Amino acid sequence: MRRFSSTLVLAGIVGAAVLLAAIPARAEVSSETQYVFNTFSFLVHGFLVMWMGAGFAMLESGLVRTKNTATICLKNVALYSVAGLLYYVIGYNLMYSNVGNWIGDLTFFYNTSEAELALLNADTVTPELIAPVVENGYSVMSDWFFQMVFVATAASIVSGTVAERIKVWPFLLFVVVLTAIIYPVQGAWTWGGGWLSKLGFSDFAGSTIVHSVGGWAALTGAIILGARRGKYGPGGRVTPLPGANLPLATLGTFILWFGWFGFNGGSQLALGSALDAAAIAIVYVNTNLAAAAGLLAAMALTQVLYKKIDLTMTLNGAIAGLVSITAGPDLQNHALAIVIGAIGGAIVVIAVPLLDRLRIDDVVGAISAHLFAGIWGTLAVAIFGGGDLVVQIIGIAAIGGFVVVTSSILWLIIKHTVGLRVNEEDEEMGLDKAELGMEAYPEFGHGSQTI
Amino acid sequence: MRRFSSTLVLAGIVGAAVLLAAIPARAEVSSETQYVFNTFSFLVHGFLVMWMGAGFAMLESGLVRTKNTATICLKNVALYSVAGLLYYVIGYNLMYSNVGNWIGDLTFFYNTSEAELALLNADTVTPELIAPVVENGYSVMSDWFFQMVFVATAASIVSGTVAERIKVWPFLLFVVVLTAIIYPVQGAWTWGGGWLSKLGFSDFAGSTIVHSVGGWAALTGAIILGARRGKYGPGGRVTPLPGANLPLATLGTFILWFGWFGFNGGSQLALGSALDAAAIAIVYVNTNLAAAAGLLAAMALTQVLYKKIDLTMTLNGAIAGLVSITAGPDLQNHALAIVIGAIGGAIVVIAVPLLDRLRIDDVVGAISAHLFAGIWGTLAVAIFGGGDLVVQIIGIAAIGGFVVVTSSILWLIIKHTVGLRVNEEDEEMGLDKAELGMEAYPEFGHGSQTI
Amino acid sequence: MRRFSSTLVLAGIVGAAVLLAAIPARAEVSSETQYVFNTFSFLVHGFLVMWMGAGFAMLESGLVRTKNTATICLKNVALYSVAGLLYYVIGYNLMYSNVGNWIGDLTFFYNTSEAELALLNADTVTPELIAPVVENGYSVMSDWFFQMVFVATAASIVSGTVAERIKVWPFLLFVVVLTAIIYPVQGAWTWGGGWLSKLGFSDFAGSTIVHSVGGWAALTGAIILGARRGKYGPGGRVTPLPGANLPLATLGTFILWFGWFGFNGGSQLALGSALDAAAIAIVYVNTNLAAAAGLLAAMALTQVLYKKIDLTMTLNGAIAGLVSITAGPDLQNHALAIVIGAIGGAIVVIAVPLLDRLRIDDVVGAISAHLFAGIWGTLAVAIFGGGDLVVQIIGIAAIGGFVVVTSSILWLIIKHTVGLRVNEEDEEMGLDKAELGMEAYPEFGHGSQTI
Repeated sequence: MRRFSSTLVLAGIVGAAVLLAAIPARAEVSSETQYVFNTFSFLVHGFLVMWMGAGFAMLESGLVRTKNTATICLKNVALYSVAGLLYYVIGYNLMYSNVGNWIGDLTFFYNTSEAELALLNADTVTPELIAPVVENGYSVMSDWFFQMVFVATAASIVSGTVAERIKVWPFLLFVVVLTAIIYPVQGAWTWGGGWLSKLGFSDFAGSTIVHSVGGWAALTGAIILGARRGKYGPGGRVTPLPGANLPLATLGTFILWFGWFGFNGGSQLALGSALDAAAIAIVYVNTNLAAAAGLLAAMALTQVLYKKIDLTMTLNGAIAGLVSITAGPDLQNHALAIVIGAIGGAIVVIAVPLLDRLRIDDVVGAISAHLFAGIWGTLAVAIFGGGDLVVQIIGIAAIGGFVVVTSSILWLIIKHTVGLRVNEEDEEMGLDKAELGMEAYPEFGHGSQTI
Repeated sequence: MRRFSSTLVLAGIVGAAVLLAAIPARAEVSSETQYVFNTFSFLVHGFLVMWMGAGFAMLESGLVRTKNTATICLKNVALYSVAGLLYYVIGYNLMYSNVGNWIGDLTFFYNTSEAELALLNADTVTPELIAPVVENGYSVMSDWFFQMVFVATAASIVSGTVAERIKVWPFLLFVVVLTAIIYPVQGAWTWGGGWLSKLGFSDFAGSTIVHSVGGWAALTGAIILGARRGKYGPGGRVTPLPGANLPLATLGTFILWFGWFGFNGGSQLALGSALDAAAIAIVYVNTNLAAAAGLLAAMALTQVLYKKIDLTMTLNGAIAGLVSITAGPDLQNHALAIVIGAIGGAIVVIAVPLLDRLRIDDVVGAISAHLFAGIWGTLAVAIFGGGDLVVQIIGIAAIGGFVVVTSSILWLIIKHTVGLRVNEEDEEMGLDKAELGMEAYPEFGHGSQTI
Repeated sequence: MRRFSSTLVLAGIVGAAVLLAAIPARAEVSSETQYVFNTFSFLVHGFLVMWMGAGFAMLESGLVRTKNTATICLKNVALYSVAGLLYYVIGYNLMYSNVGNWIGDLTFFYNTSEAELALLNADTVTPELIAPVVENGYSVMSDWFFQMVFVATAASIVSGTVAERIKVWPFLLFVVVLTAIIYPVQGAWTWGGGWLSKLGFSDFAGSTIVHSVGGWAALTGAIILGARRGKYGPGGRVTPLPGANLPLATLGTFILWFGWFGFNGGSQLALGSALDAAAIAIVYVNTNLAAAAGLLAAMALTQVLYKKIDLTMTLNGAIAGLVSITAGPDLQNHALAIVIGAIGGAIVVIAVPLLDRLRIDDVVGAISAHLFAGIWGTLAVAIFGGGDLVVQIIGIAAIGGFVVVTSSILWLIIKHTVGLRVNEEDEEMGLDKAELGMEAYPEFGHGSQTI
């Protein structure tokens, strides 16, 4: 008995030791709790980014003329829909499933994991069913949702630049290929774990991968489509074609700013630990500071240059500030976020007239705000200590080259097959009557600047 | 001493065993954490649904004529307020408190639980105070908040259909009864645990219980009110009375889409486990896919049928896709969500002219998008394996019959007492001047289509 | 051996006892989980409050005349930016860092804690790194973010009142001082832990600290600026200058209402326990009930007084209901929230014509909705049992006196140096052309009420 008891004692001590090792520290987040937090972060931040679709729609509705307003509304809701379907059918797999250096799987549809299905369909929930689900760190479809709203953003950028002269269906055909193939392929290089990722290219939430991709596609589109009738006259004359509804453009900017907390904050890709939560908070703060600085820089610069404040430029300044900080919103020195954003805002004020001098007609200023500021932001990561400058340049150039080539080919194919641009009469009349047979504001009379 | 020690050893071992049983598995979410997650899900998803009130307001503001725009704005803010008060005073108890087969308690006001009050008012928080609170799974008032925003949605649906000819106060009187009694009573049958629930009627987030209820009430209202002056002429002539501000209608659609993640996602009614989080993610994805498919289906169909894309129909296509998926957004095969949504979108395009042929004047297309697509979505649950078709039909018919009868009686009582419809002159002049003495856009001149 | 073993046994038992004490109860939220919840609450509720910036922009855009619409849009985005930068550079430290009785540190910039930096920059995350971070309860910058959006709200209130005649840059100069110094100093007295806090002044989310501060600054501004040309004629004649776009004003109200769940809900300052979650849910419910009651009270009162429903007053009624409940949204008797909100709504209807009689020209009704309803709400806390009435009056008076004096001095300094008001011609022409050289709605013709 005594021997037995001493054996028991030893067993008891060993047991106590095992217990000590197994007990979670009081401070720790359980792995299932982490899973819930991470999933909820994708969903909450994802719905914020989804809402940016409304932001682009309002911004662009406010900056086109009345005769093309219903059409730009239609394009924005339709492109979001196309992006969402195509990214489900093809895009996500191409970008994230078994990516080697260049590209993921070309398989159709994307569904939840077998582990999640087993858990969801079980009669009784057991730890054995939960464990493999939790191991993934977040729900499979929450990640899909979050990534999907990003591809829609890239497509939204294009729509503003090429507004007021492009046909609806050919534009959507471009969006099909952009969101199914072009965006996912280059996305696989970095976020899918491909060659740029291995090289160390750093782009936290997509100054390059999302914004400059949209910007390059917009640039090639603007060049291939040509300018709107009446925009550029002989001798370098530029006729302003002012937006018809500036409160809507302001609303759109506010929506984008609001949604950007999801765009950048969610790109931490996790929430379920003190580290992740603290990191996301920093991202929010930098995002806000950069936007504020971009807005005020653009506003002040237009006052200095033109002796009047330009509201449209000012709004684009905020957007450029946001785009600029998107590659590195995890900066721990917040004052740098102000610097990065302010430079982004200044870039817009300088770039918009430059593009006009090149007779590249960008209706809403998207190329300046998304492409140029996106490049700046991606470089800024290295300049301020978050990456290698050469690698950043390689990333910018590789993605830029790829998108310029593929989107140019695509625009040209569409142009020479189904056609890209409405005819002169339809452009004069406005796309709303020509393509939709309706007016955006049928009861509002015609004011001083109807063109 | 040794004997004593061996007794101690045994005690130690028993203690260790007890400990082992008591220690939470490393992966588990603690029950208080679950409570917080579940409560926060109700609040976050609830504020998204609340925001849908703005969506209906903007959609309807965009689709009426300028002379009735301020009135429709007023009706939308007022109905949300009425719904929120009445559901507090009567509705919630009727729908959820001690429901037998048919109806809950007819008691006034709804307040938090005694367990929560004890916890909130304690000088020291103890596990004994927390336990009974946590046992409920979620905070009492967070559930109330989430359910309240649903009843407001049902009322919003009515407002769009009967716009441009109904008087403000009588409309709000209808809303009082709808939100205090009609909606809660039929809601008790399924969500309150009543007879339809026992029968196995399946309606995840309310294709029937919310959307078709609003739709039936709208349909009876449209019939009893009659069409707007000038809408239907002799020989089946239908005069389009186009909406005055399509960007606002587009914004409204985006808001509804955005809010629908709350509507469907929150209807999982829990977030605090891997299973719930994974389920909500699936719901978000299906919700988005169905909306996208509904929009594109409606858009393509209008192109085919009318040779032009109809923006209003296209927006309603997205809404119909959303309504369609609402009964079963927990589908694990996402491709089916696309099918369900696309059929929903097509239904709108077919139903809108059918209603016109019947001279039922639905200003914003709400009957098509909410009632017909709601029926379709509820049937689709059974068709795609989530319920029994006969039971689904019984549920649709019972709820439909109840709402048609009660709302018809209510509309008729109002009509023959305080009156329902403005007089001809007021309708001609517009409700804004007649009922509010103001204009929605006093400075905008009158364009080509002022009617 | 046996002696040794009995020593071990004792050690084992002691160990087991220690373990028992150390193991978290099954129901408890771990401290790191609490940190994540609290941080996420600041972020989610913070982005809702940020969105209120868009609400003020839309409300004010809808309530000014077209000729001043672009300018009010500009002011709203710019003031949000100024507030965000200044609160980072100076304001937060002044309000929250080492506050004695009167004021915090006058140091520049605000950054995350060393504990968080150590965690974020560690190669390996260890419990020793997590512990000091978690001890703070929430991420440092998430708190900053949440507090920052509040200061922006205070500035937004001013902008509406002084619209249509103030110059852009001088207005922003006022906002600089308001958000860098005036707001933070009085905020330190209560929320920073200063003398009012020690006295027991109770203002949950800022009926006085945010809303009446904005209201007092607006009132002094309105008096010092003077009324708009043509607003007040001889013999007490008041000319209505109706808002140009009521759907935007409605949208703005919806946005404010939506954002207010963040404003009040987040002011619980924690989410990571059942108590906090239950408390936040109660706050949401009271917030909604008070807004609904305020809206319906104002609506009914305008019907009674003017025989027509006034949409603008009705919208302001909702805002006043929200402001009223902001000092005490943690009321456990929800019926009282209805009473408080309804009185708030009635206050607006009574106060707006009173101010007009005093020839104080408040373009959007912000003084009535934010100052008067804010005072009412702060008193209501004491009336309904949540504080001492004398202390509440002291708080209201002290903060009011401070803001009236400092903001008057500031307005006067600006007036007599750079100038505050546009000249008569510019006011006649509209600020959009004068200050921005553009029109908000260049294509919309001029309707019946262009003034």
